[in-house]
Amino acid sequence: AVQIVSLGSEDDDHAFNLNEEALTAVLNKAPSNRKVSVISCVGAFRSGKSFLLSNFLRYLRYYEVDEKTGDVKSRDEGGEKWYTTGGKLSENDRFEWRGGSERHTTGIWIWSHPFTLRGANGELLSVYVVDTQGLFDNETTMSLTASIFGLSTLLSSYSIYNVAKQISEDSLQHLALFSEYGRTASDLGGDGDKKAEKTKPFQKLEFLVRDWQNFEVEDPSTEDDFAEMEASMNSYIQSVIADRDAVDLKETREQIATCFEKVDAFLLPHPGLEVTKKKYDGDPAKVDPTFMALLDRYCGKVFSSELEPKRINGRYLTAPELCEYIKAYAAIFSSGKDFPAATTLLAATAAASNNNAKRISVEKYKSEMDNLAGPNVQVYHQPEELSRHHNATRDASLTLFDSIATFGSSAPIMQAKAEVKSSVEEAYEVYVSLNSSRNPLAGFE
Amino acid sequence: AVQIVSLGSEDDDHAFNLNEEALTAVLNKAPSNRKVSVISCVGAFRSGKSFLLSNFLRYLRYYEVDEKTGDVKSRDEGGEKWYTTGGKLSENDRFEWRGGSERHTTGIWIWSHPFTLRGANGELLSVYVVDTQGLFDNETTMSLTASIFGLSTLLSSYSIYNVAKQISEDSLQHLALFSEYGRTASDLGGDGDKKAEKTKPFQKLEFLVRDWQNFEVEDPSTEDDFAEMEASMNSYIQSVIADRDAVDLKETREQIATCFEKVDAFLLPHPGLEVTKKKYDGDPAKVDPTFMALLDRYCGKVFSSELEPKRINGRYLTAPELCEYIKAYAAIFSSGKDFPAATTLLAATAAASNNNAKRISVEKYKSEMDNLAGPNVQVYHQPEELSRHHNATRDASLTLFDSIATFGSSAPIMQAKAEVKSSVEEAYEVYVSLNSSRNPLAGFE
Ligand SMILES: Nc1nc2c(ncn2[C@@H]2O[C@H](COP(=O)(O)OP(=O)(O)O)[C@@H](O)[C@H]2O)c(=O)[nH]1
Ligand SMILES: Nc1nc2c(ncn2[C@@H]2O[C@H](COP(=O)(O)OP(=O)(O)O)[C@@H](O)[C@H]2O)c(=O)[nH]1
Ligand SMILES: [Mg+2]
Ligand SMILES: [Mg+2]
Repeated sequence: AVQIVSLGSEDDDHAFNLNEEALTAVLNKAPSNRKVSVISCVGAFRSGKSFLLSNFLRYLRYYEVDEKTGDVKSRDEGGEKWYTTGGKLSENDRFEWRGGSERHTTGIWIWSHPFTLRGANGELLSVYVVDTQGLFDNETTMSLTASIFGLSTLLSSYSIYNVAKQISEDSLQHLALFSEYGRTASDLGGDGDKKAEKTKPFQKLEFLVRDWQNFEVEDPSTEDDFAEMEASMNSYIQSVIADRDAVDLKETREQIATCFEKVDAFLLPHPGLEVTKKKYDGDPAKVDPTFMALLDRYCGKVFSSELEPKRINGRYLTAPELCEYIKAYAAIFSSGKDFPAATTLLAATAAASNNNAKRISVEKYKSEMDNLAGPNVQVYHQPEELSRHHNATRDASLTLFDSIATFGSSAPIMQAKAEVKSSVEEAYEVYVSLNSSRNPLAGFE
Repeated sequence: AVQIVSLGSEDDDHAFNLNEEALTAVLNKAPSNRKVSVISCVGAFRSGKSFLLSNFLRYLRYYEVDEKTGDVKSRDEGGEKWYTTGGKLSENDRFEWRGGSERHTTGIWIWSHPFTLRGANGELLSVYVVDTQGLFDNETTMSLTASIFGLSTLLSSYSIYNVAKQISEDSLQHLALFSEYGRTASDLGGDGDKKAEKTKPFQKLEFLVRDWQNFEVEDPSTEDDFAEMEASMNSYIQSVIADRDAVDLKETREQIATCFEKVDAFLLPHPGLEVTKKKYDGDPAKVDPTFMALLDRYCGKVFSSELEPKRINGRYLTAPELCEYIKAYAAIFSSGKDFPAATTLLAATAAASNNNAKRISVEKYKSEMDNLAGPNVQVYHQPEELSRHHNATRDASLTLFDSIATFGSSAPIMQAKAEVKSSVEEAYEVYVSLNSSRNPLAGFE
C-alpha cells in the first residue's frame, strides 16, 4: 500500500500533506482512458477496517479480469471459494493490521495498483482500494480528522463507514459534519453549481456494522436464510435514517440525504475470538464461517452488483482526471483557510453560549442608551449625565453577561466579555457624538 | 428497578420528568442518618450496561452486610464464588437487558432498594445502583441526552462510563460536554462556590471498556497475571488522559480533569459469544471465565476498596439529603432554560461559521461607513451621496457574507444574512443622524 496523505511536517505536527508523486504514480497504473472506481473505508481506529480491506484484496486477486482475455482470472471450481484458498496473508498482500491499542495507520493509503473489474453495467473499470487512519484515536485534532474524512469521501465512488455494534446517533452526527467539509471543498474545488440543491456531491455511503449481535437467523445455511438477513439489514438502515421530528435528529438525517445519492448498510457478525488475538495471521479458515459467508456476499455487492465508476458533477472520471481533482481538493484541505475550524462539542457549545451572552448584553446596553441618546432622541444631556448613564448601563450589561455566560472554560468567557466591553465603548462614542450634536449651545461656547 | 426519570409527556415528546414519588420511596428505604453511595452506569445503548449492573446485583446480594449482625451475609466457602452459584437471573433479579437492536431502557432507573455495605474506611453505607438509558440511540435529542448524562453524573459518587472496544476521542469529547452540563447545574443548584476552581464537582469517573482486545496476558490464572492486567489498565488510562499539545485534545482533557476528582479505567474482555445471543439467560456459567474473574475483581474495586459515600461540596450525604439535591437538579434540567441548547457538531460548527461571517461583514460595513460619516468625521455629505455609499457598502458586505457563510444548511445562513441586513440598516440610521448634525445649513433651510 502507498501513502497518499501523511500528517505532520517539521514545523507543524498537524499539517496535512498530499504525497503527489506517490498518488500520480499509482493512478498512472490505470489505462488513461478507462473509468475509475474508488472504494474507501473510514471509521474508528482498531475497528477492523484494514482487516476488511485486506480481505477485499484477496477477493480482488481472485476475481480480477485478465487484461488479455477480458475474462475473470479465477473461478469457483469444485466448491472452492476465494477464501478457502491461500491461507494466511503475508505482509505484502494486505493493508497493515495489527492487534494492540495503538494506532498504526496514519493519513490515507491506497493499494499500490488498481484491479480491473467489470462494473455493474458490464464495462471495464480500474478499481482502487483506499484505507484511512482511524477516527478519534486520541492523537489527531478535529481539523485533521475532518480533512481526512472529507478528502476520503471526495475521492471515493463508494464510501464505507465502518462502525462497531450499531449505527449510533453520534456516528451519524460525525458523518453529517465531515461530509459537510467534503461538500464545501467540492464547491470550492469548482465542480459546478455552488450549493446547488439538485446534484448530490457524493455517490454511495454504506454503513458497515461490525460485531452485529441482532440477527434473527442464527446459523444461516440456505439462500433463504441469507436473503432474510439481507432484508433485515435493509429494514435496519431504513429505520435508522427515517425522518424524525426533533430538530437535531432531523437535520442530521437531512444533511446525509443531501450529500449522498444512496445510503445503505451491511451488517457483519463477530468474526470469532481467534481473529481478535494478537497472533492472528489473516487465515480465513480461522474466521467464523457465517462471517466469511456474509463477507463473500458483501464483496459481491461492492465489487460487482453495485460497482460504479467515480462521478463528479455528473461526469465519469478516468484516473488522470481523478488525480487532478484530488490535488485540488487536497490543496483546499491543506490550507484549511476556507473552512470553519473543526472543534469539539464542548468548545462549540460554549462558544454559542458566549456569543449569545454577548449579543444579549450588548443589545441591552444599546436599547437603554438608545432611549437616552439614540438617533431618534431630540434632547441634549450634559456630558456628565451621559457618562454616568453609560457607566451604570455598561455595568448592568456586564452583570447580565456574567449571569448568562456560565458554560465552558473561563478563557473564552473572558475573551467574550472583553468584546462586550469594547462594543459598548465603541457604541458610547457614537452616543457622545450624537448627543453633542444636540447641544443647543454648540458654537456659542 | 424503579424509574426515577422518564421522558416525554402528553404535549412534549421530549420532556424530562422526575418521578418524585418513586425517588422518595426508594431513598426512604435507607436509614435516614446513614451515608449513601451511588454507583451509576452510562454509555451507548446496547453496550452491556444492564448486563453489567445485573451482575453487580448478584454480587451485592452475595456480599451485603446483615443489618442485625453487621457481618457480611455470604462468604466464599469451599472455593464457591458469587458467580458460581445461582444460575440464570430471573426478571425480578436484574435490570432489564435484552438482545435486539432497539432501545429498551429510557430515562434513569434505580434499583428498588439500597444494599448495606462497608465503605473503604469501614463504615456502613447504603449503596444504590443506577442504570441509564443508552446514549445516541437514534431517538433521543441532544438536549435530553445531556440532561440524562448530566443528572446521572450529579447524583453519583461513582460514575461508570461504559464504552465499547477502547476509549476513543469522541467518547472523551462527549464526557467533556455532558459533564459541563452537570457542572453548570451543580452551580445553579446553589451548592457553593460558583465556578470555584478549587473543588471539583464530581468524585469518581471510571471508563469501563468492554470487548477489550489488547491484553498481553491471554489466559490469566495466577495473581501475577491479574496484577499485570490491572497494571496495563492503569497505564492505558494514563496514556489516554495524558496532556496533549493540540488545543482540542488538550481542552477535552482539562475539562475532564476539572470535573472529576479521580479518573480511572477498567478493561473487560469479550464475555464470549454465548452472552451475545438473544436467548442468553444471565447464567454466569456461560460467560468466559476470564471475563468473570476480572468482573469479580472489578466488583471488589467498586464495592469495597474504592467505595465512598456521595459527597457534594465537601459534605457527605444521607439519603434524604441526596433526595433534595436530586429534586433541585432535576428541576434545572427539566426547565432547561439556564443551559445553552445542546446541539450537534454540524449545527454548532455551522453556527460558528455563520457568526463569523456576520461579524466580519458587519465590521466591514461599519469601518467603511465610519470613514465616511463616523463619529470622528467632520465633513457633511449630501443625503443622496450618503445613501449611495450606504447601498454600495451594504451590497459589498453582503457579498462578503455570502463568500464566508458557505458551511451547513441554508436556513441558518439565510437567518444570519437577515441579521447582517438589519444590523447594517440600524447602523445606517445612526450615520444618517450623525451626518445630518453636521449639515452647515441645518436650521437655515
Ligand atoms: N471484534 C472484531 N475484531 C476485528 C474485526 N475485524 C478485525 N478485527 C480485529 O481487530 C483488530 C484491529 O483490526 P484492524 O483491521 O487493524 O483495525 P483498523 O485500525 O480499523 O484498521 C485486529 O486484531 C483484528 O484482527 C471484527 O469484525 N470484529
Ligand atoms: N459484546 C458484548 N456483548 C455484551 C456484553 N455484555 C452484555 N452483552 C450483550 O449485549 C446485549 C445488550 O446488553 P444490555 O446489557 O441490554 O445493554 P445496554 O443497552 O447497554 O443496557 C445483550 O445481548 C447482552 O447479553 C459485553 O461485554 N460484550
Ligand atoms: Mg487500519
Ligand atoms: Mg440497558
